[in-house]
Amino acid sequence: MSMMPKFAKTPEPPYYAVIFSSMRRDNGYTQVAERMVELASQQPGFLGVESVRGTDGFGITVSYWASAEAMAAWKANVEHLAAQEMGKQEWYEHYELRVAKVERAYAKPST
Amino acid sequence: MSMMPKFAKTPEPPYYAVIFSSMRRDNGYTQVAERMVELASQQPGFLGVESVRGTDGFGITVSYWASAEAMAAWKANVEHLAAQEMGKQEWYEHYELRVAKVERAYAKPST
Repeated sequence: MSMMPKFAKTPEPPYYAVIFSSMRRDNGYTQVAERMVELASQQPGFLGVESVRGTDGFGITVSYWASAEAMAAWKANVEHLAAQEMGKQEWYEHYELRVAKVERAYAKPST
Repeated sequence: MSMMPKFAKTPEPPYYAVIFSSMRRDNGYTQVAERMVELASQQPGFLGVESVRGTDGFGITVSYWASAEAMAAWKANVEHLAAQEMGKQEWYEHYELRVAKVERAYAKPST
């Protein structure tokens, strides 16, 4: 994860974004989180990820995907399914997951 | 901003999300950022905001809006326009702004 750039280099819209907001319990899962980013980045249609977590445990991770099919395949990945279950049971006090279609994008400096 | 809950209480999709990822320069703008959240929350169609910034200056703020018209009105707000200009000129080394339509949403615990 430390090797990933902070900003996702995404193509011209349209593409998809999964916005995952979460409050983490104090029971570390950093290794799994890093593994999930590594695994996601190997999935077809993965465009990039942006992630930040504050010291209070609240974090936002946005992953970007080329298509609905690419998102669905990642959601169904067996190793990811196990992590999702651990997330629900152990790691997160609360989370919100929103699937969105990116329609427009701007950057500065322009990219 | 400290009075705002961490999670946005959003309605059933569809609605809109503005995903703003930024790397901040070390020249504080906290007061303006808080004022912008206060001002946004008074706009028609504002649904909520989620925001987190790491100690390295990288942050993600996602604001949620009922309609494209609500987003456009906020973008054109005069006080917000001045802040946008300051952001481009002073506060942000780099940013990415993505406008997306939320199609599905999940939460745990369920809301």
